[in-house]
Amino acid sequence: MSVITLLTDFGLRDAFVGTMKGVILGICPEARIVDLSHEITPQRIEEGAFVLRTAYPYFPVGTVHVAVVDPGVGGARRALIVETPGCRFVGPDNGIFAHVYARETDIRVVSVTEPRFMLPEISNTFHGRDVFAPVAAHLALGAPVSDFGPEIADYDAGTVTKPVAHEGGITGHVLHIDRFGNIISDIGESLFLETTREKRFRIRLAEVVLDRVCASYDEVADGAVLAILDSAGLLEIAVNGGSAAETLGVSTGDRVEVVVE
Amino acid sequence: MSVITLLTDFGLRDAFVGTMKGVILGICPEARIVDLSHEITPQRIEEGAFVLRTAYPYFPVGTVHVAVVDPGVGGARRALIVETPGCRFVGPDNGIFAHVYARETDIRVVSVTEPRFMLPEISNTFHGRDVFAPVAAHLALGAPVSDFGPEIADYDAGTVTKPVAHEGGITGHVLHIDRFGNIISDIGESLFLETTREKRFRIRLAEVVLDRVCASYDEVADGAVLAILDSAGLLEIAVNGGSAAETLGVSTGDRVEVVVE
Amino acid sequence: MSVITLLTDFGLRDAFVGTMKGVILGICPEARIVDLSHEITPQRIEEGAFVLRTAYPYFPVGTVHVAVVDPGVGGARRALIVETPGCRFVGPDNGIFAHVYARETDIRVVSVTEPRFMLPEISNTFHGRDVFAPVAAHLALGAPVSDFGPEIADYDAGTVTKPVAHEGGITGHVLHIDRFGNIISDIGESLFLETTREKRFRIRLAEVVLDRVCASYDEVADGAVLAILDSAGLLEIAVNGGSAAETLGVSTGDRVEVVVE
Repeated sequence: MSVITLLTDFGLRDAFVGTMKGVILGICPEARIVDLSHEITPQRIEEGAFVLRTAYPYFPVGTVHVAVVDPGVGGARRALIVETPGCRFVGPDNGIFAHVYARETDIRVVSVTEPRFMLPEISNTFHGRDVFAPVAAHLALGAPVSDFGPEIADYDAGTVTKPVAHEGGITGHVLHIDRFGNIISDIGESLFLETTREKRFRIRLAEVVLDRVCASYDEVADGAVLAILDSAGLLEIAVNGGSAAETLGVSTGDRVEVVVE
Repeated sequence: MSVITLLTDFGLRDAFVGTMKGVILGICPEARIVDLSHEITPQRIEEGAFVLRTAYPYFPVGTVHVAVVDPGVGGARRALIVETPGCRFVGPDNGIFAHVYARETDIRVVSVTEPRFMLPEISNTFHGRDVFAPVAAHLALGAPVSDFGPEIADYDAGTVTKPVAHEGGITGHVLHIDRFGNIISDIGESLFLETTREKRFRIRLAEVVLDRVCASYDEVADGAVLAILDSAGLLEIAVNGGSAAETLGVSTGDRVEVVVE
Repeated sequence: MSVITLLTDFGLRDAFVGTMKGVILGICPEARIVDLSHEITPQRIEEGAFVLRTAYPYFPVGTVHVAVVDPGVGGARRALIVETPGCRFVGPDNGIFAHVYARETDIRVVSVTEPRFMLPEISNTFHGRDVFAPVAAHLALGAPVSDFGPEIADYDAGTVTKPVAHEGGITGHVLHIDRFGNIISDIGESLFLETTREKRFRIRLAEVVLDRVCASYDEVADGAVLAILDSAGLLEIAVNGGSAAETLGVSTGDRVEVVVE
């Protein structure tokens, strides 16, 4: 059994995603296909890269992850396979795998050039169907990564914002706002715990100052703002029973400060 | 083969749902996973409970239904397995299974306490991934319900609004508004038919009065309001080719009256 | 293995689609179910018909495609199976298969009348669950099409807008606007290439005039309008990195002119 996941900005109104699945099942009928998200904001590569990072570590060894947020489709950008000891990634060379590059130590990147792993006709606008889906299906069938094309080193590593630790604490950023309006920062759990160990601290975002981290949303009153270490191991600002992003009016990229005394 | 269904308020923009599927397939690779809904309004337990009720009777015997609308995640609320002769339910102890408790006569409720059926690390914010998905996968693999923890009787039975039959007819409520704007009441088919048998009746909701029940939407003119007995066995107010909820301006909880003469 | 695809206007908020899958798996546990779209605008048969056309050619031989955009549910409209050499279609007789009828040369259409292929109780409002899902599952199990009911010839062929070729060029229409705001016309690639071969041409839509066709979106500047031959073999007007439908303010049915000199 082979698991193939799909992450795109294709939405669910058109049949783009379903069509990719038809192509996959035509090549690899046993593939188990799982949707990660198809509601990435159109052409927002960094959003797709982050969502992929939250999910891929939870899949069985051998999974093939297809990620297609691809404003450069039809142009010069290459098609890639990124191999790690646990899984394979398939998608365009535009930074969509930024978090994979940043987190995995043992990777191999191949530029997919072999037409025999693609559909016979390749459109200008839908490489999800014509290139990435069939490549993933052939990987799931067992074709070795080296058959798909040459290994490369000059891939687009993309952008991963990083928090800066300094004498006064940590300066981080809003990385993502999730479906509930929870504000996910780029400040990781271990950096946060080390920086604040045995110290008083304040977390500052927009007009809000918080001086503790909760273990559950309902530790504060309904509608109150709280900080919590979230399921991706990141410092999150939330509102119990509400939307923190709406309450605080913040957006991706805004600053989050941790100040220690 | 084991079927596992998923119902959440997680939305489809983030990869929460896909991540749960990765965890399930890692434990039970043969599981067939079916989405019921992930667009339950955030934290609206009663909406999730109703949507679950419309779907679960149509699944094969042995299906495991996971339902996660869970504002109390990380806090004191328990994780449950509810067993009926036909299937198993997995989710938080917060009333999400209210309709199951109300409709099934032979149930057993277990509080899940055994860590060996959960992921090794349990986050504060995502028990769908860390607790409910692995518990469902182990159930689908065949682990007996009694292995997961002690049987309990003091579970949160939740809220199921009930219509009141009285001398003048029935007083019911709007239970749900579906994707088409159809208004689903809590007045069941058999109560309605018994109450109105061989009598003239009127159905009243907002400014509308209806004196018959149609067998199809197109029995009335395009844009006209009608009453119909719907696919969940409930009295529904609809607009042929349009949205009754928009036309009538009603919301969940509003009164629906059946008046007999 | 049998693939069953589902296309509906049911949305994903209710559990209509999940319930259909429960019915299918109860009858044909081995079915592989693929969603094409459930976000067809409610009751817009032509939109569903077009989305189906973009997807079905990419599925393995033997696939059963279920399409339910069904404003006449419960009324007099028939339930159909449309058989082609490559696949079967199941849905209401209301034009939802218009593009199948227009594109396939060898079809057989059967009116489904045999109750043994439906659920025992058939509701007024949800034939997706009670009729179309079980019929598709029985087809996937191998029941011959002729067992389901009589062959008919007077099915509703629906509407497929066609471009008109004339001395001055081609007059076409906006057929669909996709998730990215790309404007898909009904002008096919081969008609377009024949008409414009070795001639200067202009493409006119709203206030925009274009005199060439690009091979990728990024051939023009960010935010600029372009024409491209799209993945369904149709002439498309797009904006690089943006939404053409929003930029140009056009809707389905608007005219697209190709003028040759």
